[in-house]
Amino acid sequence: MKIENIELYYLSMPEILDEADGSQDALIVKVEGGGLQGWGECEASPLTSIANFICPKSHSAANPIKNSVLDKELNNINDLKKIIHEVKQKSLMIAQTPHTFSGIEVALLDLLAKKESTTIYSLIGHSSSQPKIAYASVLFGNNPQDTFKIASDLKKQNFKAVKFGWQNFGLNFSQDQEHLVAAREALGNEIKLMIDVGAIWGTDIEEASKRSKIFKDNNITWLEEPFYTDAYYEYSQLSSTSNLPLAGGESCHSIESAKNLINYGKVKFIQIDAGIAGGILAGNEICNFAEKNKVQYVNHTFTSHLQLSSSIQPYASSTFSIYAEYPMQLKSLAWDITENHITKDHNGMINLPLDVGHGMKINQKALEQYNVDVEIFVNKKQLF
Amino acid sequence: MKIENIELYYLSMPEILDEADGSQDALIVKVEGGGLQGWGECEASPLTSIANFICPKSHSAANPIKNSVLDKELNNINDLKKIIHEVKQKSLMIAQTPHTFSGIEVALLDLLAKKESTTIYSLIGHSSSQPKIAYASVLFGNNPQDTFKIASDLKKQNFKAVKFGWQNFGLNFSQDQEHLVAAREALGNEIKLMIDVGAIWGTDIEEASKRSKIFKDNNITWLEEPFYTDAYYEYSQLSSTSNLPLAGGESCHSIESAKNLINYGKVKFIQIDAGIAGGILAGNEICNFAEKNKVQYVNHTFTSHLQLSSSIQPYASSTFSIYAEYPMQLKSLAWDITENHITKDHNGMINLPLDVGHGMKINQKALEQYNVDVEIFVNKKQLF
Repeated sequence: MKIENIELYYLSMPEILDEADGSQDALIVKVEGGGLQGWGECEASPLTSIANFICPKSHSAANPIKNSVLDKELNNINDLKKIIHEVKQKSLMIAQTPHTFSGIEVALLDLLAKKESTTIYSLIGHSSSQPKIAYASVLFGNNPQDTFKIASDLKKQNFKAVKFGWQNFGLNFSQDQEHLVAAREALGNEIKLMIDVGAIWGTDIEEASKRSKIFKDNNITWLEEPFYTDAYYEYSQLSSTSNLPLAGGESCHSIESAKNLINYGKVKFIQIDAGIAGGILAGNEICNFAEKNKVQYVNHTFTSHLQLSSSIQPYASSTFSIYAEYPMQLKSLAWDITENHITKDHNGMINLPLDVGHGMKINQKALEQYNVDVEIFVNKKQLF
Repeated sequence: MKIENIELYYLSMPEILDEADGSQDALIVKVEGGGLQGWGECEASPLTSIANFICPKSHSAANPIKNSVLDKELNNINDLKKIIHEVKQKSLMIAQTPHTFSGIEVALLDLLAKKESTTIYSLIGHSSSQPKIAYASVLFGNNPQDTFKIASDLKKQNFKAVKFGWQNFGLNFSQDQEHLVAAREALGNEIKLMIDVGAIWGTDIEEASKRSKIFKDNNITWLEEPFYTDAYYEYSQLSSTSNLPLAGGESCHSIESAKNLINYGKVKFIQIDAGIAGGILAGNEICNFAEKNKVQYVNHTFTSHLQLSSSIQPYASSTFSIYAEYPMQLKSLAWDITENHITKDHNGMINLPLDVGHGMKINQKALEQYNVDVEIFVNKKQLF
């Protein structure tokens, strides 16, 4: 079939708050071909990626992504790989390209899987989909008491793992310690505790190392993003001096960058967002590389269940990579994007839908309700 | 002084050709404060970066760059470092950010140097500006005869070094060899010859290795960008097996990524574009790191002389890093952006202007002549 149409939908909450919550807006992709629709989501600044999609050409390595996808043939994975290659070659010099293309790749795989009446994970070679331990992904409370309460609630909901992230964690040692102790106390000893500091220390190994002991005392499963995503030297230093298991990778924009974080950054968990790293096939290749190096693959998801399903597809059948990020504080927008949702069972596990494609059904009403109208004119000609 | 105003100018040739020539359009930045103007250039897809500059906020780490710069105080380098830090923190999750901010950083340094009535290189700590060996940066001819002619012409112009790049080089072994032989024959033995393959081999070490002998037979000074910019493993493998001096870095979006290409990719020449890597201060830090590791710093420039001056500032006083890229086939747009130009002397050397800031005077007429009109509306409100 031919890729006949591509549409981008910019959705947003009425108000965007100054918090780390990535579910406040969304860029949704629809592709059409052969009478079918495929859907994906970019984890991207929507307006920036819309511009990237339709921008006038700058030179042979800075083309609008649209030109490398629309009207192309898509009958099998090989056709998709050709498109991926063309996008990489022709839009290499626009830094936003991976953010924009990732959601398109997911939509194309969804379309192709629907054409073949199969799931995406089967289409890319997974024999089955294994349940994963859902870790509740939440932000720290405003104070240790709030953190304690959030952790207690999640324990009651039967989660077997909880990850706290961001807010002001990492800036004040004693407050950090209080939050950690509160979280561990509320969870008890059995439930896994992960900590995400969102690159707060930049390249400052000392700030990170100072906290090694309090992380260990509270038995964390991993420390996520201590540094900027490409600060491999700093990652490897912290890993070897503290022996803390490190996690990272949500900002990886390519297969190579994820391999580098494993090879040189020495992370033990590589966290890949299908809406950032290049899509599901990129994730699949990263997963193969990671597991050969005894590194667990983990989805990164802080948006909709469309993105949740997409980001789990690359390691669907793995029994080595056992965790899955499960966002818990979604704004209504991100929840409403899909009609169906991935739900946790009584053992705290989640699994992919069995339906074709990524298995998520788009809620057309949400596309209207949260719609942001964008018009872009270049020399008076409307490009979007 | 306060940063009172920031303006972005999208300029373009009337027609953009499907060639690797990056001088076909431009994104120029003007900043104003204290009655002075500073100018810089982003090496970026203009529309994508304009969107990045004014996009609605997505969350606390995905803000429009404008908000982190406009109305801020700028009285010294430390103020600038605060702005750089804020941009990095608040726009970390928009991949386009370094492309967009780099030109702004240059404009801010230009403004600050003008306020201090000094050159940028003096302001950032260089005691002097040393002449560099200008290497003529050109594209291969359409056939070996054309390449021979281009090389002969450059020799007559007294260049002491020439770099050929791109077009279809890297796809056909025997044609590649013919181009190389033609270039070397025309240049003779004394003139340095560099080759730029523009990441043509992606991650394919074999395709690169096949050509090791013909590169050596023609005595090249470096092989530039054999692989994608973050394919460090592939870089290091080619470096160790072929012993070819490798060069790369034009796509480095951060200080860390340049350090990685040195540490892990084992390049011998790190090529940094002030309009991509974060600006001139980023370049300066990369230069210090590179030279400590016995790696030469080189500017990357394939656009205007505004960018040429900006990209040489970070290593102005170095006597270890001796080469400078000198673009030779600029479209009229890129030439016309500045009223003055950096010219080569009779020994094939170039040096920075002595005037305040980066020393380049913007041609107001060119801003009008090549102007591309952009209007962006979000929910009917005009953001640009």
